[in-house]
Amino acid sequence: MYLKTLGENAVNAKYTIGLLSEEKRNDVLLKVADALLKNTDYLIAQNKIDYDKGVSENMKASLLDRLMIDEKRIEGIAEGIRQVASLEDPLNRVLSEKTLANGMHITKISVPLGVIGIIYESRPNVTALTFKSGNVCILKGGSDAINSNMAITKVIRDVLKEENVDENAVQLIEKTDRETAGEFMKLNEYVDVLIPRGSAGLIKAVVNNSTIPVIETGSGNCHVYVDKDADIDMAVNIIFNAKTQRIGVCNACESLVVHKDIREALLPKLAAKLKEKDVEIRGDKDTKEIIDCVDATEEDFGKEYLDYIISVKTVSSVEEAIAHINKYNTSHSDCIVTNDKEAADKFLKGVDSACVYHNVSTRFTDGFEFGLGAEIGISTQKLHARGPMGLNELTSYKYTITGNGQVRG
Amino acid sequence: MYLKTLGENAVNAKYTIGLLSEEKRNDVLLKVADALLKNTDYLIAQNKIDYDKGVSENMKASLLDRLMIDEKRIEGIAEGIRQVASLEDPLNRVLSEKTLANGMHITKISVPLGVIGIIYESRPNVTALTFKSGNVCILKGGSDAINSNMAITKVIRDVLKEENVDENAVQLIEKTDRETAGEFMKLNEYVDVLIPRGSAGLIKAVVNNSTIPVIETGSGNCHVYVDKDADIDMAVNIIFNAKTQRIGVCNACESLVVHKDIREALLPKLAAKLKEKDVEIRGDKDTKEIIDCVDATEEDFGKEYLDYIISVKTVSSVEEAIAHINKYNTSHSDCIVTNDKEAADKFLKGVDSACVYHNVSTRFTDGFEFGLGAEIGISTQKLHARGPMGLNELTSYKYTITGNGQVRG
Repeated sequence: MYLKTLGENAVNAKYTIGLLSEEKRNDVLLKVADALLKNTDYLIAQNKIDYDKGVSENMKASLLDRLMIDEKRIEGIAEGIRQVASLEDPLNRVLSEKTLANGMHITKISVPLGVIGIIYESRPNVTALTFKSGNVCILKGGSDAINSNMAITKVIRDVLKEENVDENAVQLIEKTDRETAGEFMKLNEYVDVLIPRGSAGLIKAVVNNSTIPVIETGSGNCHVYVDKDADIDMAVNIIFNAKTQRIGVCNACESLVVHKDIREALLPKLAAKLKEKDVEIRGDKDTKEIIDCVDATEEDFGKEYLDYIISVKTVSSVEEAIAHINKYNTSHSDCIVTNDKEAADKFLKGVDSACVYHNVSTRFTDGFEFGLGAEIGISTQKLHARGPMGLNELTSYKYTITGNGQVRG
Repeated sequence: MYLKTLGENAVNAKYTIGLLSEEKRNDVLLKVADALLKNTDYLIAQNKIDYDKGVSENMKASLLDRLMIDEKRIEGIAEGIRQVASLEDPLNRVLSEKTLANGMHITKISVPLGVIGIIYESRPNVTALTFKSGNVCILKGGSDAINSNMAITKVIRDVLKEENVDENAVQLIEKTDRETAGEFMKLNEYVDVLIPRGSAGLIKAVVNNSTIPVIETGSGNCHVYVDKDADIDMAVNIIFNAKTQRIGVCNACESLVVHKDIREALLPKLAAKLKEKDVEIRGDKDTKEIIDCVDATEEDFGKEYLDYIISVKTVSSVEEAIAHINKYNTSHSDCIVTNDKEAADKFLKGVDSACVYHNVSTRFTDGFEFGLGAEIGISTQKLHARGPMGLNELTSYKYTITGNGQVRG
């Protein structure tokens, strides 16, 4: 009943939010940014309730850090919202247009997805993207951050109300129990799309339990393959960057694939470089012949470590590399380092991932880096959107057809 | 275990099928068309087993007719396949391209979805579309048509084998029990997308039980709204066409919405015209004041009759019409008949459907009519594709990024 009311509110709101002018949507976003800054004390006080509870329950330091809101972070959130306001409008783009022989004119035009459900483990920084794209959102956060989420949502909804915009454009599910989450995932009557953001476990649970269409994001077992004709320094540089520049992200390199003919030239140099950051190498038999390392098991090749660990598999050809990567990757981002144009073409075509790189670090898979301006996540599925998802990926389209009485014969 | 093997076969096939040249894919399709014609006797004999079983089990005449294969229908199937071969290639289209400041070049290029599961109640006429778009398919038909489906699949697979193409590009699930269907819908490890084709009940069951992303197609409760400033003859003509030209299709009009100010001028003329086809009218109170008709209940407004029945609701404004339609439609196709440009704009923007018409019959929502060349179905969801789905809608995309050693700072 509780969720049904939220669902009905959202559906009612979607018909007006999608029709707001670009100016109005941007204006509201700027006012939300101002209001968050103005309410800094309130937000920090509410966040402190969650934070203190986390401390008393021995929450991990990294999670506590993610939970914490201070003045600087609120400034960061406000700045992010202002930036979204400045991006190009994803709505009302004419995607194609034609007049048929019978005089009917068909226009394909971008429209909001409608009601987007967002299930997230950390803070709601995506509301600006859903609002900018004319969508209505229903947010479901965890119990750990409930007071912070309620406070942020309250500030946003107060602005919407003041601006005469349906405040149900942004709703938070205030019940944090498991049953409510389960019911939310079956709210097909009201919710058009569900986007889970967070751990691989959270995303898998949503995929397995939701009857609403889900956009799967996040999980990344990314590979760098060094071909036999590669520039060794470039390879070492790319692998070091992809593995260690930031270990906890989905586009970090987790597994290395090396052509047998280059392993002697590459592996000792690479091992020395990775030692700078104390990266643990887990290699197969042919790797161990060249460098000291831990034994890699079958399980290692399929693992997203998110840690200072990398697995190494040796192969005899680019074809074998492609087959290995297609078997173990998560279809996120994979890279070939080679000077051989033909091998690169095979790899770019053959590896079935959202982003396939040639002589570039996998760390570039990112909405900002790709020039989308912002991102709501990185899709690892094939339907709708693949790779970094920006504002355009939060839209659907409709056909409008105009004529003068055409009927079908 | 049986499905796991089919899944593994499909995944192995997808890496080669997606890389076949356009010429090869078209050539194979033309050979499949020839082979179906050559095997006419065999196909008819196998179909007769299903047909006779249907007769002995008192299958409905309309279903028997749909099940039956004769020489003419095989010619039609072959002709359809030839037509698909002649369509533009949906693969390897460069969707966008740019070079970033750091020299990285990003290309967004269309690729197959991968493994498409198709659950269908009637015959497999979609295999040509999936193959043309570089996809691998796993087909699941009903027990009623199992011998026909096995025969058609055999003919196709024999051609693939002869042409040195992985025959697992097309596989049929030969077990027709319910449990196998249930397991198939959870084959996420192997299947990228599931497309159910058939009754509203079948589609709903798949949406509720599948953990694989589903493309929802088909169900259509389409409306025609006649505004107060409409051309009466045009309105009667469009409604008559949309309601009666073919009653069993998803783009047929099921419900009429009429502005109160025009009901006296419209309804008697319309009732007289609909009488030609013995259409039953179910109207609200304000309709009954003008013409003789059956009482419309709340349930009528949400119903896809697929029959010679139409419901009529009267409203006082275009806004009320939009709200009524958004409440009861299936987001498929809806039409406004009006000479008032402003009302038309409101309707085209405000009605949340895949196809919204102004002064055109809803019957045009169709891949062939829209110039897509063919269609695999009409999507009524917001993700991925909306409205008629042709070859392009059977593709995803990938980003390929090339550079000379770029790393992220």
